[in-house]
Amino acid sequence: MSSAKNPSAEAAVLRANATFYRAFTRGDFPVMSALWAQHAPVTCFHPGSTLIRGRQNVLSAWRQIIAEPAPFEMRCDHATVQLYGSTALVTCYEGNGEQAAHLAATNVFVLESGEWRMVHHQAGPLARPLSAATLAASSLN
Amino acid sequence: MSSAKNPSAEAAVLRANATFYRAFTRGDFPVMSALWAQHAPVTCFHPGSTLIRGRQNVLSAWRQIIAEPAPFEMRCDHATVQLYGSTALVTCYEGNGEQAAHLAATNVFVLESGEWRMVHHQAGPLARPLSAATLAASSLN
Repeated sequence: MSSAKNPSAEAAVLRANATFYRAFTRGDFPVMSALWAQHAPVTCFHPGSTLIRGRQNVLSAWRQIIAEPAPFEMRCDHATVQLYGSTALVTCYEGNGEQAAHLAATNVFVLESGEWRMVHHQAGPLARPLSAATLAASSLN
Repeated sequence: MSSAKNPSAEAAVLRANATFYRAFTRGDFPVMSALWAQHAPVTCFHPGSTLIRGRQNVLSAWRQIIAEPAPFEMRCDHATVQLYGSTALVTCYEGNGEQAAHLAATNVFVLESGEWRMVHHQAGPLARPLSAATLAASSLN
């Protein structure tokens, strides 16, 4: 299992990750649907919830969640990528609009038909909201 | 990215996942250390906490957490595997001893030197503890 750096793949994964939060913010279901893997198995843990398994179930839940676009940006702070061949792991913090980030998230992508597509998402609460200033001042940045 | 079933690989991943919870329960740092990847990049989100990055930092945190072995089994309920080539994703629910599971977890493994080794762990609270009876009665099982 290679862990060699691959800047162009990392950039492509970060673009896919940004697409996820943009679709969430805009309530753009077609983009959200296209982002999730078509063939590879998919799962999702929404905060506090039990596992949702399978493309149809995962997207049905997202359709409900984004039916009303959020009145703020679903922000993803400090997204970082780890590449494992044709699988990529993104970790980040999620916040609403200008508010401090309140969730920690793991997003997993696989390379499918030449595109990085999402196969798993877990978000869970941070014990203390994490402001941009805290992030900038910490070793996290 | 293949999503074909591979029962022997899935069984090996589940054994590695079980090793993680056994090392946690027993406070067995050498086993915990051997389980985490030696070369591939590793990260960890403990419940409520910010990201820990890098083998040394991740294991330093685990050393502290398991310094006093838990007085109960760190239970992993309903572990299921998704294989993406030489990367594997395990989802499960974590509970203490006989108590209902109170955390949802994502554990990511990669095949390194012929062994499935952990590269990422995220655990976050469930909104409602999940008893074995609830699991058995639900479509989760």
